[in-house]
Parts: sequence; structure tokens; C-alpha cells
Amino acid sequence: MESTLILIQCKDSIGLVTSVTQILASQHLNIISMREFVDELSSRFFARIECNGSPKDSEHLYNELKDALPEQAIITINPSKRKKIAIFVTKEYHCLGDILMRNFFDTLGAEIQCVIGNHEYLRSITERFSLPFYYISHEGKSKEEFEGEILYTLSNYRPDYLILAKFMRILSPEFITHYEGKIINIHHSFLPAFIGANPYRKAFERGVKIIGATAHFVTGDLDEGPIIKQQIIHINHNYGVSQMRIAGKEVEMAVLSKAIALVLEDRVFITGNKTIVFD
Amino acid sequence: MESTLILIQCKDSIGLVTSVTQILASQHLNIISMREFVDELSSRFFARIECNGSPKDSEHLYNELKDALPEQAIITINPSKRKKIAIFVTKEYHCLGDILMRNFFDTLGAEIQCVIGNHEYLRSITERFSLPFYYISHEGKSKEEFEGEILYTLSNYRPDYLILAKFMRILSPEFITHYEGKIINIHHSFLPAFIGANPYRKAFERGVKIIGATAHFVTGDLDEGPIIKQQIIHINHNYGVSQMRIAGKEVEMAVLSKAIALVLEDRVFITGNKTIVFD
Amino acid sequence: MESTLILIQCKDSIGLVTSVTQILASQHLNIISMREFVDELSSRFFARIECNGSPKDSEHLYNELKDALPEQAIITINPSKRKKIAIFVTKEYHCLGDILMRNFFDTLGAEIQCVIGNHEYLRSITERFSLPFYYISHEGKSKEEFEGEILYTLSNYRPDYLILAKFMRILSPEFITHYEGKIINIHHSFLPAFIGANPYRKAFERGVKIIGATAHFVTGDLDEGPIIKQQIIHINHNYGVSQMRIAGKEVEMAVLSKAIALVLEDRVFITGNKTIVFD
Amino acid sequence: MESTLILIQCKDSIGLVTSVTQILASQHLNIISMREFVDELSSRFFARIECNGSPKDSEHLYNELKDALPEQAIITINPSKRKKIAIFVTKEYHCLGDILMRNFFDTLGAEIQCVIGNHEYLRSITERFSLPFYYISHEGKSKEEFEGEILYTLSNYRPDYLILAKFMRILSPEFITHYEGKIINIHHSFLPAFIGANPYRKAFERGVKIIGATAHFVTGDLDEGPIIKQQIIHINHNYGVSQMRIAGKEVEMAVLSKAIALVLEDRVFITGNKTIVFD
Repeated sequence: MESTLILIQCKDSIGLVTSVTQILASQHLNIISMREFVDELSSRFFARIECNGSPKDSEHLYNELKDALPEQAIITINPSKRKKIAIFVTKEYHCLGDILMRNFFDTLGAEIQCVIGNHEYLRSITERFSLPFYYISHEGKSKEEFEGEILYTLSNYRPDYLILAKFMRILSPEFITHYEGKIINIHHSFLPAFIGANPYRKAFERGVKIIGATAHFVTGDLDEGPIIKQQIIHINHNYGVSQMRIAGKEVEMAVLSKAIALVLEDRVFITGNKTIVFD
Repeated sequence: MESTLILIQCKDSIGLVTSVTQILASQHLNIISMREFVDELSSRFFARIECNGSPKDSEHLYNELKDALPEQAIITINPSKRKKIAIFVTKEYHCLGDILMRNFFDTLGAEIQCVIGNHEYLRSITERFSLPFYYISHEGKSKEEFEGEILYTLSNYRPDYLILAKFMRILSPEFITHYEGKIINIHHSFLPAFIGANPYRKAFERGVKIIGATAHFVTGDLDEGPIIKQQIIHINHNYGVSQMRIAGKEVEMAVLSKAIALVLEDRVFITGNKTIVFD
Repeated sequence: MESTLILIQCKDSIGLVTSVTQILASQHLNIISMREFVDELSSRFFARIECNGSPKDSEHLYNELKDALPEQAIITINPSKRKKIAIFVTKEYHCLGDILMRNFFDTLGAEIQCVIGNHEYLRSITERFSLPFYYISHEGKSKEEFEGEILYTLSNYRPDYLILAKFMRILSPEFITHYEGKIINIHHSFLPAFIGANPYRKAFERGVKIIGATAHFVTGDLDEGPIIKQQIIHINHNYGVSQMRIAGKEVEMAVLSKAIALVLEDRVFITGNKTIVFD
Repeated sequence: MESTLILIQCKDSIGLVTSVTQILASQHLNIISMREFVDELSSRFFARIECNGSPKDSEHLYNELKDALPEQAIITINPSKRKKIAIFVTKEYHCLGDILMRNFFDTLGAEIQCVIGNHEYLRSITERFSLPFYYISHEGKSKEEFEGEILYTLSNYRPDYLILAKFMRILSPEFITHYEGKIINIHHSFLPAFIGANPYRKAFERGVKIIGATAHFVTGDLDEGPIIKQQIIHINHNYGVSQMRIAGKEVEMAVLSKAIALVLEDRVFITGNKTIVFD
């Protein structure tokens, strides 16, 4: 049977759930799963509703919901199930490799359009999967020029999301405005611990007993964007910096994959610098 | 502000969520959190709804819901927030101790009425918390006699739930019918591995690398009741049977506490031999 | 600086550590890390010793150790750091994909020689990595014929280890004797729970709250071989069989990779139907 | 059979393991388990050795080891198996409660001598376990006076370790020098995230998906002492500050217990601002 996915975010007010469910009932959409959350700090309402059946007239459904909900409500009916993504890399292969493999076997829930690297290292693996690789070096260029080249390349693809799969350049706030809420990064620590460069060295020096990774949306505020997913592993005194880095890569790979899946299945909403994850 | 908690279980049918939310709206109850699940195997609908506000007339609300829902729907409005429990023990202290401590500081979300032990070992700790301890030995008695004495003792208290906190006797199906769906046990393995006696010895002999514990409702079918919560820890070749037992106790204690909290907050529904946990 | 790795297993007796360390000192080998374990059930001693420096004469060192240790001691000095492996697959890609990717970037600590599949499905991904894929169907053949073909194919490669990366045929005890203690399988449950076929269906029916995976050595006793590594993830009532399978694959992939790394780094010893893992 | 535990820390040099094992062999002490580690940053050697048998003359053994090891080696033969501890608390009961319960059933591996609180809240629970409780308020006193009173109280007990079980005052460097490397604190975050006050509020505001706790030795440098043990739990957007605090308490309790056990079993060495944990 067909199913309908409806995403809503708007100002909170009394009776939202009732209003929405009445409209769905009037369209003979039977709710299979409804997840909702009110962020009390921002007084905003978020919902993800799966129904059996499909609306006779999606535009009509949209308008009915729009009328019933507070002004400026953001309503999405049946978002694309096959989002388009571009992947940014530098030298480390593990996150890219994992994503390429899932894409090849069509379990990523997305379509990789291209890979952009500021080094050539990962061209070979990308091309083995018959995907285009763009080498855009940052060297000898202003950040503006570098990012301009990237934007130009992306303009041919118009991806829904950018995945920073161990991309080691900091993107400017200007760049980010082009893909607000659409850039996912993997940070090699359990943020907010070890913000910035060399987290494994800092972790080693501090003598921590856990290391981790954080997948988050990228905002203009470095390492401060909304966190989607975090995971850790236990380590001990035998781990030097390089062993931490090796162990950390496993976590980074797993966390980024999971975060991408959550976002691509439209399970993640952004509210302020946080996320709501209906997993 | 006052809040209202509504629990529903009934046969599934189209439009249940809509019916329920309309009724709540008509009573000016604003839904804060709604969790629902349809068990497709049994075709049953389960919901846990938290609202702001309280109904003017609870009986009226109950009847309205009853009329709107399929026959034999089970509806609970504002279940007791302070359930009464009796605890069954044998010799091991760790689960009892943890529960007594939480009870003393009133973070258990329940009121312990009494502790029943088939050995005397745990009388002292119980009485230090000013709670009654009943020593009911199983020795030299038929199971019927033994359980009859327990039932007689319980008849003074009429507890909502029985907690088997490392109680090492198997209760008869007849006994269980008196507290169907109301008896919680902690089993010292991640079921269904190592069903029955001596799970740590079996785990040792099998050479497993994880051990665990399972909190479950007790049914007539030993170790086969609906699972509420499970947790594991990693072990290695250095663990003999006794080290496993020591490590396992930490997991047992944590899992049982968590399961009790979930049940006492009315977050757990039973469907067949499974649970739905709205955590 | 050069380093020397020494592996020892033998009958336990008094003074083994002293004997061994004296011999190493006499050869100017400085112990960096020594891990040892006595399996009391079998009364056997196991040690893994990393030293700085390399022996002037490895054969002399071997003989000295041989003389000092109980009869039939198994001593290995500097085992190959680049073991050769063959991978067996059926249709599921996730474990193979992960191993191929690590092999391509040379972080597997091994050299994949070939992939053998009883279906054609995974030929394409294997060949994209420029590795030979052998399609050996089991259909219309006796087990003897099927395994004979596999052995014939392997005879060209003489791999150190066979990795069953979701290979869905049961190997005969006869086959296994050719690679005793050298075949690693990934089983899609936290053994000994859900032995045999369809573990995720069984897990669903039992209503468990955790699922897992187990990497183990293969013996003639199905699903009973020595366990190398286990890991689990938490699930809830929303997981149907297919969601469990999807979630389980992530665990299978991670556990198999980790187990392979441990074995290839010579950190795993087999004792009876258990392992000792010096991780 | 009797057993002997030997702890060693000294400057690293060639042949230490050999020297030590030779001396043990000459005393007919058979090594059951030997754990050693060289901290390359500080060039120091650490070892924990369990032997079967006991030395005929402990002083002779000590002197032999002293002669064989570098100057200023710290050698401990058979440290007390029943250390004495004093517990410091403020208002939160969960860590104290857990420790009192273990102490009562003699599974703590220590003997609680007294509890010191800067509030009266936890007197009742302490006295239920027949242990002395000292109320030493900090109010209206200089830090020097406050700590002077504590030191005076402790002078009657001479505890081996001080456990800060949610003690919410910062101890001065002067106080700490009296118990250097002997004070264990539980910090309510996975350090170094959320150093300082109100970690759960900071965690809430940052929107993290994991929270945790850290048991560490206390040094003059607040929240920067050597970490013994860390653990985390996963949270989601439903957790407000108070739910985080409740969930966090479970982790704090478990981590502190585990850290105490490790320290009391002489499994933890301090090197610089890190620990070596032979678990």
C-alpha cells in the first residue's frame, strides 16, 4: 500500500495535534506512526507523521494544513526518498569508502552525485565506483576563490546535502549560507570535548578513557552546529595517539553513516543549535 | 499546571488517533506527548498520551473514549503515580539494596510495602530501612503451601507489582495468575541465551565475550515472559565464573532498576510475549 | 627500531615466565609488552611477548626456548605481518565491502587473495577492486563435490585464513580439518542465543531488546566454535524483522572487521572451544 | 594457596622484567599474572604482579628488588587488602548510598570509617548503617578553617583514601597535599567536556546526544586530575536538564563504584596527569 510522510514545524499552540489529525482523517489517511515534540525554549512544534494511503490531492492537503497551522508553518508532504548528495573529502578514506559502498549497493537512501577533494588521494577509489571526482585544491587560492570553484562545480548538480567526510578545510559562513542546514560534518571527538584541531593528541595528553565522534550540521560557528549523533569507544593507557586515531576512525565511520541515514529518512529537525531526532 | 496521563490498548482500526485526539481537544486537554504503536501480529493498538490540563469529569472522558474505541478497549486515565510494590528475595543483596535506597530517598516512584524472603539473610538490611521483612521458608513445604503463605502475607498489602529481586524459587502458574502481568523478574543472562540455572557457568563454558541481564514479566512459561529491558557488559578470558557473577550483578542491578522505573511510569505495555516500551 | 614478536603456548608449569624472560634477556631483547594467561581448565600457558631489538639468530632463540619449555610447546617467532586471506561470500555485501575497502587502502593487515562466492552477486564489487572472484555454485552438487571445487581453487593460493563473510553454506567437518583454527565466521546473533537459521526472526518473535553478532572460529560443531568477538545494539518494539536485519548488518560488519584485525595481529589464541584475546 | 601481590614503579631501563622475574623465581614465587607498562613520555616503568606462594622473608624480597631496580623505585609487597576510606558528601545520596550498601555487605573491598558532610542531609542514611557522620559546615568559615576542621576529624581515622561522593566544595591545593593521589572524585560529565559547574545545563544547551561521568584523582588543578574511569549514556531531545541529571546519576554511581574497586584492588597507577589501569 502507498504511504504518505508529512513533516511539520511551526510555532507551538494549543490543539495542533488535533487539527492535524482531523485533516488527515478527512483525507482518509490512517496514521501509522506519529512523532511530535515541542521545543519549549523556542516554543516550536515539530512533527513527523507516517500514514497509510495517499492524499487524493496533495496541494489541497497542503493548503488545508497551512490554513490550520500557525503562520509560517513549514509543511512537507512526501519529501524525496532519494536525495542527492555531494561528498567533500581530503585524504582519509574510511568515511568516503563506507558511503561509496552503501551507495553502490543502493542502501544509502541517497544518490551520490560527485565527490570533491582538495587533494587527489581519493580519486581512484571514487572512480572505481564510476562516480565523478573533482580535484579542487585550496593551495595558492583565497578562501573565496577556493569556495567559488566548489560552488561552481556544485551548480551543475544542485545536491540536497553536502557530506563532509573528513574534509579538513573550514568552510566560510558565506559558503554555508548556500546550504544552510544541509551540510553534515563528522568531527573526530565527542563534542564539546576537544574542539578544534588534533583532538586525538589532546585526548592522549588529557588521559581520557573514552574517545568518540560527533556528526553535526555545519553552521558558521565552527564545531558548534547542531549535533545529530554521537558515539564513543573505551580506550586505555595502551593507546597512543596513533592507536586512538585508528580506533576513532571506526567510530567516525559508524556515526557519520548513521547520521546520514537519519537525515535522509527525514528524521532530523533543527531547532536553534540542536536537533530533534525521531529515530 | 496539572497534567493528565491516558493509556489505551484496543483492537486496531482506522482513525483511532483522530478519534482520541478529537475527544481530548473537546475536553481542552492539550497533548504534550503522544506515543502510539500498532502491533501488527496481534492487530492491537497501544497509546500513551500526556496532556496539559485535567478533564472536568474523568468519568465522562472515560465514557467518551470507551464509546469511540473498539469494544473491550482498556482505558486508564491518570494511573496511580505511587504504585505499591512487594519485593521477593533469597540471599543476594545487590538488587534489593539498590531498590531500598531509592525507596528511602523517594526516587523509586513507588512505595515498598514489604520484603518477602525465603531465607533470613536480608532481614537486617530491610529492617534498617524500617520496612517489614517476612521470612517464608520453602523448606519442608509443598509449592502450594509455600505459595499459599506468600499469598496470605500479600493479602494484607494488595501490592500493584511484585518484584523478584534475585528470588531463586520458581513460582507456579497458579500463583502467577494472581498477579498476571504484575510480576517483574531479573534474569542473570541476556535471554534467550543461557535459559535456566547457572547461566554464568554456562557462559564461562561457552567462552562468550559478553554477559548480560534481562528484566522481564513473569508468565507461566519459565524465562519466556515479555522482556522489558536488557543490558550487557563485555568480558574477556580473564573472567572466571565468580568474576562473571560479580560483574553480572552490576548489570542485574542496573537493568532491574531501569525496568521498574519504566513500568512504574506506565511506559510498558504487554502484547503477547513481548513488550512495547514508550521510553 | 626493529621489534620481535614471540608467541608461546604450552603445558603450564612453574617458572615459565622466568625461563622465557631470562632467555630473552640473554639475547638482548628488551620486553616492551608481555601478555600471558594460564587456562586452568586445560592447564595450558599462553604468552604474547613484544620486544625491542631482534635476535641475532632466530633459530638459536627458537631452540633455546624449545629446550626451556615443556614438551610440545608451540613457539612462533615473528609470525608473518601480512597474512594471506580468502573470503567466502553468498549474497550479502556489507562484510565483504568493508574488508575490500580496508584491503584497498592497506589497513587490513592482510592481503586478500581471492573471493569465492556460491552466487555471482558479489563478482562486480570484487572485480572493481581488481581481485579475482570465483563463482562456485553448490547447486546440483554433493557437499563433497562443492567443497572439493573450493579446495581446488584455494590450492593455488594457500591462504593463511578463510573469512566467511556472510557465507550461507555449512562447511563439512572434513573441509574444516584442512584449515583448523584458520576459518573465521560472522554469526548474526550474540551466540549462544538464536543458534542456527533465521536469528532475526527468532529475535523478533522472542521480543528481545538487544540484537548482536558474534565472530568465531569455525569448528565441526556448528555455531559452537571459539568466540573471538561479540557486540550488540539496543532495539525496541518498532523494529520488525527487516529493521533488525538492517541494524544487525552494522554490527556484523564491525565485529567481523575487529575480529579479523585481532587474529591477523596474532592477538588471539584458541584453547578448547574458547579464545584468549590479548587486545 | 597464599598469594603475593607486588607493585612496582620506577624509571624505565633495559631488562627490568627479567630482573624482577628472576628474583621472584629465586623465592619460589610463581607468576600467575603480570601486567606491565612503560609510559614513554615520562620514561617510567609500572608493573603489577600476582604470584602463587608467599615470600619466606618479605623484607629480604623487598631489598632484593630494591637493589635490582633503578634508584627511587617504589615497591609495594602485599598492600593492604582492606583499605580504610572516608567519604565526603553534600546533599545527593546516590553515590553514598551505593557505597554504604556495598560496605554493609562487605563487597566494597574497603572499610568505611566515616562520612563527612557539609550539610546534614545524609546523616540519617549514614547512621542507619551504624557509621559515624560528621557535619562540618563551610558556612561562615574561611576555606582554611573549613578544611582545618575536616583534617582534624580525619586525624582520628587516618584513612587511606578520601572519596568525594558528590561533595560540592572545591578543596584547596593545600588540603590536597595531605592526601596526594589518594582523593577520588566523581565529576558529572565526560571530562574534558563541560568542565566546572552545571554540566547538565551546559549539555542541554549544547544539545549533546551523550552525557557521562568521570571518576578521577583530585589534584590542585580543578577537574584536571588523572582520569580513572569514564562512562556515558545516550540521550535524546526529550531530555531536559532534570532528566539529564536523573539519568546522569545512574552513570555517576556506576562509574564511581567501579573506580573505587579498581583503586582498592591496587590496579591503578598515576603517571603525570594520567592513570594506568591494569583491569
